Amino acid sequence: MMNFGVKRLVLVNPACPLDQTCYARAMHANKILDEAVTYATFAEATKDLDFLVATSSVEAHSEKYHLRNPVPLEKFAADSTKVEGSIGLVFGREDFGLFNEEIAVCDIMVKIPTSDEYPSLNLSHAVALVLYELYKGCRASGRRRKLGRVENDTLQGFFAELLDTIDYPAHKKAQTKIMFRRMMGRAMPSVWEYHTIMGVLSKTLSRLKNPRK
Amino acid sequence: MMNFGVKRLVLVNPACPLDQTCYARAMHANKILDEAVTYATFAEATKDLDFLVATSSVEAHSEKYHLRNPVPLEKFAADSTKVEGSIGLVFGREDFGLFNEEIAVCDIMVKIPTSDEYPSLNLSHAVALVLYELYKGCRASGRRRKLGRVENDTLQGFFAELLDTIDYPAHKKAQTKIMFRRMMGRAMPSVWEYHTIMGVLSKTLSRLKNPRK
Repeated sequence: MMNFGVKRLVLVNPACPLDQTCYARAMHANKILDEAVTYATFAEATKDLDFLVATSSVEAHSEKYHLRNPVPLEKFAADSTKVEGSIGLVFGREDFGLFNEEIAVCDIMVKIPTSDEYPSLNLSHAVALVLYELYKGCRASGRRRKLGRVENDTLQGFFAELLDTIDYPAHKKAQTKIMFRRMMGRAMPSVWEYHTIMGVLSKTLSRLKNPRK
Repeated sequence: MMNFGVKRLVLVNPACPLDQTCYARAMHANKILDEAVTYATFAEATKDLDFLVATSSVEAHSEKYHLRNPVPLEKFAADSTKVEGSIGLVFGREDFGLFNEEIAVCDIMVKIPTSDEYPSLNLSHAVALVLYELYKGCRASGRRRKLGRVENDTLQGFFAELLDTIDYPAHKKAQTKIMFRRMMGRAMPSVWEYHTIMGVLSKTLSRLKNPRK
């Protein structure tokens, strides 16, 4: 939860107390345990929430069985950024998951995509995956490398000059230049990386043109 | 792993054996433990893999620090569907993560987006999130470019030789080599692209060493 900036943990009729073992496992996320709230019933726990989301990695076999007819996690994560209000993510028991009557009162059921061979996730992984997708969706944007258009053009020019300088076969030049542009396109170098690679190329070119004895 | 159809578990010099506790936790994924392979060293474990991916949720603070300059997990997952070859996902120790010398030999470093407030994921969650993203990506499309491990090693060797030949400043060499490895890692060149770029580099090197009048 702390890894993805989610703070409010609500426990419904838990089978075990939040003891030393829990705190030891929580590492530096103790604060979430300190502030966890416990309710006796699911109804109480959810009464102040605007939207309830049941989670599962197990899908209904028939589309007609609406109870477990799910929305893919990724779609829910994208849609959730467009709404305002308190969303309750409902996770079931480690062993039995959610009961049908709990799923029934949720607004949607979200399905975490997993292999048909072994669809059941453990609870901890299910929570991590759902919070991760929501976190990705909520972030305006992550740290991005600043791309350099001018630098890229300059680099392509240097590369072309290198091909000329080493007498690269004329009939292969055009293809090789496109390949280099594509490779750089996929690598998406930062401005700083462009400067470094251009430093290497310009030193190479100057050495080629003014060879030392 | 079983949840996302990943079968091959490789352990490097593990601190504990695959005992009854492991089997109990694995539930119906025992097969993965049965078929797990253990190596004494990281080098042995990775020698037959075409492309090595270091994973972390902790990012470098400077773009110039190439070693930990990462590709976002989602972008890697999308790119990985376009290549063919064996990809090794490298996860560090639960307590210390990956050492710098392990990260240095990987082709790229992938960053799992997490909250700045608490970026460190536990190992189990990191694995779940990476496999989940790759699973989503694999379902989406077929594969294309064939990765070349041998070709990549050769290319990195040529680049190092180029830096030596042009008397590139000694104190910048290590960083620039890692930057080049990272750029190529992000570009994920095909075998054919490697051959082309090596052709250019080898012609450049031979011209530098035997300058024409």
